[in-house]
Amino acid sequence: MNGKNIVASAYTAANEKKLKAVNPATGLQLDGDFFKASKSTVHDALTSATIAFQNYKGLNKALKAAFLNAIADEIANIGEELVNRASAESGLPLGRLQGELGRTTGQLRLFANLVAEGSWVGATIDMALPERQPLPKPDIRRMLIPIGPVVVFGASNFPLAFSVAGGDTASALASGCPVVVKAHPAHYGTSALVGGAIIKAVEKTGMPKGVFSLLYDDGYSIGTCLVQHPLTKAVTFTGSFRGGMALINLAQQREQPIPVFAEMGSINPVVFLPQAMENQAEELAKKYAASITLGAGQFCTNPGLMLAVQSPALEKFKSVLKEVIFTFPSATMLTEGIANNYSKLSTEVIHKYGIALLSASSVKNYELLNQSQAMVAQVSANDFINNPKLSEEIFGPYSLLVVAKNMSELEAATTALEGQLTITLMAEKDELKDYQSLLNKLMDKTGRLILNGVPTGVEVCAAMQHGGPFPATNDSRFTSVGSAAIYRFVRPLAYQDWDRELLPDELKDGNPLGIFRTVNQKLTNEHE
Amino acid sequence: MNGKNIVASAYTAANEKKLKAVNPATGLQLDGDFFKASKSTVHDALTSATIAFQNYKGLNKALKAAFLNAIADEIANIGEELVNRASAESGLPLGRLQGELGRTTGQLRLFANLVAEGSWVGATIDMALPERQPLPKPDIRRMLIPIGPVVVFGASNFPLAFSVAGGDTASALASGCPVVVKAHPAHYGTSALVGGAIIKAVEKTGMPKGVFSLLYDDGYSIGTCLVQHPLTKAVTFTGSFRGGMALINLAQQREQPIPVFAEMGSINPVVFLPQAMENQAEELAKKYAASITLGAGQFCTNPGLMLAVQSPALEKFKSVLKEVIFTFPSATMLTEGIANNYSKLSTEVIHKYGIALLSASSVKNYELLNQSQAMVAQVSANDFINNPKLSEEIFGPYSLLVVAKNMSELEAATTALEGQLTITLMAEKDELKDYQSLLNKLMDKTGRLILNGVPTGVEVCAAMQHGGPFPATNDSRFTSVGSAAIYRFVRPLAYQDWDRELLPDELKDGNPLGIFRTVNQKLTNEHE
Repeated sequence: MNGKNIVASAYTAANEKKLKAVNPATGLQLDGDFFKASKSTVHDALTSATIAFQNYKGLNKALKAAFLNAIADEIANIGEELVNRASAESGLPLGRLQGELGRTTGQLRLFANLVAEGSWVGATIDMALPERQPLPKPDIRRMLIPIGPVVVFGASNFPLAFSVAGGDTASALASGCPVVVKAHPAHYGTSALVGGAIIKAVEKTGMPKGVFSLLYDDGYSIGTCLVQHPLTKAVTFTGSFRGGMALINLAQQREQPIPVFAEMGSINPVVFLPQAMENQAEELAKKYAASITLGAGQFCTNPGLMLAVQSPALEKFKSVLKEVIFTFPSATMLTEGIANNYSKLSTEVIHKYGIALLSASSVKNYELLNQSQAMVAQVSANDFINNPKLSEEIFGPYSLLVVAKNMSELEAATTALEGQLTITLMAEKDELKDYQSLLNKLMDKTGRLILNGVPTGVEVCAAMQHGGPFPATNDSRFTSVGSAAIYRFVRPLAYQDWDRELLPDELKDGNPLGIFRTVNQKLTNEHE
Repeated sequence: MNGKNIVASAYTAANEKKLKAVNPATGLQLDGDFFKASKSTVHDALTSATIAFQNYKGLNKALKAAFLNAIADEIANIGEELVNRASAESGLPLGRLQGELGRTTGQLRLFANLVAEGSWVGATIDMALPERQPLPKPDIRRMLIPIGPVVVFGASNFPLAFSVAGGDTASALASGCPVVVKAHPAHYGTSALVGGAIIKAVEKTGMPKGVFSLLYDDGYSIGTCLVQHPLTKAVTFTGSFRGGMALINLAQQREQPIPVFAEMGSINPVVFLPQAMENQAEELAKKYAASITLGAGQFCTNPGLMLAVQSPALEKFKSVLKEVIFTFPSATMLTEGIANNYSKLSTEVIHKYGIALLSASSVKNYELLNQSQAMVAQVSANDFINNPKLSEEIFGPYSLLVVAKNMSELEAATTALEGQLTITLMAEKDELKDYQSLLNKLMDKTGRLILNGVPTGVEVCAAMQHGGPFPATNDSRFTSVGSAAIYRFVRPLAYQDWDRELLPDELKDGNPLGIFRTVNQKLTNEHE
């Protein structure tokens, strides 16, 4: 494993401070030396990305697709070593990481298909009307073009699917933008392995070398330099509210502002409607205990808030939930910092704000470090409304049950909610119709509405929306999961009366690529 | 004419300081009293907009289209009174304003058609695969939904097409967002007339009253309140760099950040390639003299910079340009402030930075006030590169000719350019091919590339892009002209496993609206 920084798809010679990866379950150092990047590494990476952009942006779509597929192939080729390393670095179980590996290569291939098909550029053509009165109409043709080098911050909780070759990198490369990745300090080795795979893919498919760089750091200085660098054109981040806001503030202070796409977490409220609770109390309790504790609760879509109306059925729900949580075994969290923070916040919320502890996991693995204890607490709707602190995310296997006296108090509690990635309704088919005004309000607070499911598990597909109103993300108009994630890195360019031969193929007469285009206000994929 | 503030489609009773409209050509007050809004007017407008949003956002698309068409009808009904008032307030000629009136109603009808057709919401459906291994795939359906109340700042230079019922208002209402307009102080009466037309349209089509409000102010306090108000969800602005940045900074300081769409001007560079200059010197000079002076140069797409290589043909171009500019009559500018600023900056650039005056208009109408004097100046490519001040916009009939020794010096001069709304190439068909690397670089600096035309005249159509890299606009991913302007006010919402009957029509099985949708990755408008 080569832990040197990668600049323009090549390992750098100059290396400063050595960094070591740690197994959070044991606290022991893992093999491999990694090297803190410097300000000049940042500059070299972005300079080479900018030069590569001039060739890469207009590259034939089949070549770009081949590159993305080659990255998927090379990552799949590493196989077991990658999954084992990711597990050792993150404390996540092997099975979960095998699934995540499939999702990662699947995402790359999804974007390869999107690019190869080609219609995503939204080609729009309004042909000239030279005889129009009082003025002739020019020929205008527009399509999306990439914006330039993208800085991707690896996320701790998806060491494969939202890291070096994760959804952000895949969508940025698909759009035609070079990528500079800041490796997450929680999985240096996993990052290095995937970085090596991308280098191979660059070589095999003859890409301009500057399309990929990978830098290491154990603090904030390299991330700061990357966001401040004048050649950076966009930034992606998945992590905490504090981390996201720090990057957004840095970007706003730049001479030339750039978009930051920060996914900053969410408490993903779940509303249990009365009839559903009445009929399915036990089943719902089991379903939600599993969703709350999945992956030690370290998902942006973890259900951190449940809202229900008091009833005998709710008491039954609570008793089953309490039991399952009580007997749920502890699990290793991603890092010591995350484990400490979870322990601190989940304890504080009980002691400081006087909410009732419903149940906490009693099964702790004392042989391993950084163990999370699953926990559910309860508060009245009234107290919830009056304490905005209770709406803050506690990252880990924690959930707060808000108990309302009736549906109108429950509805009042939902007005206190901030923007969310997801909101879930658990409802019987017939009762949903009775809450149209509640649904109408909830849709303005979220990016995804779920019926009778759990928010964990984010399907990677064209229709997915993973991004919601602030503070869930800072820009709810975009998604970081699914094929629409590509639209974060492009802008439209219109050509007016342009030379027919010099137009990009996407906009040429006769539609040589056979893509869907809007021609004179009509959507068509007709071609000659 | 009723000059009271309009809140929720009704004239307000409480009125503070009286404001008067002024004719910039005479300095005389025009008839009509207008009233400065207050902080509480702002709050009332945004509260009623927020309430109206709950009904308006999901309104049947035919009703929304009828509303937009009714606004167009009511504006057309005012007819001559409107054009006369706009001319008296802006100093713009009647002919130009008649054209602008047509553009304004045309824009409203364009958005009515877009909404009535319905495919713009980008409906995307990925159906469930309950048997998928290892996990079943849920049913996910996504479409664009409106974000809430939009604050529109009227622009001075388009008293009809970018003011009370201009492109921003039309696109926001089309998207499903209520609008609160801040009237531009340069045309209170025009604003009041159009505001009255919108009230009638709201009544005729039975819209929720809160969808429209119109507030007056002669300073910055109401604009500031509007941007800071927590219920405001987006802001549109067309004007100066300083004004746009002030609004952007206010928005960034909000607890909940919101998008600002600021079009902040541009110098719209025109590159004359050598062969074109050789063959068409005289024709080009006439064409560009007309574009520079059109509307007293008060267009965001005014060609403020021309770049050419020294040659005998260029000398001919200059001599014709000089003559036309010299004999070009003065014209009334929009406001005293704009006229004073133009006079100050166009004089300063000659005296302070030592650039050569090529020609200035000698025909001044001494009977009228606020007259602009057309002006062209010249600088070497080298001096241009070394003085960033020369790249700043001078709003009015001014253009700077940059003379390079050869094409490589010209190309170097273009690297000094900031982001632009438009870049124009004047070229013979054969020579364009020789400058692919120049074109490749220029495309990253602009939202629209024009061949052998002039940048003035922005066609309102689906393919138009009016928005370029910073500082031309603050967000080059969006356009303020053309039907794509609607995408500024929406965000995606995904429904997961949602009740089939409660889904919006756009996402229902069988495609009852017959719109284009992406179903299981295939674009289709098939319906039952």
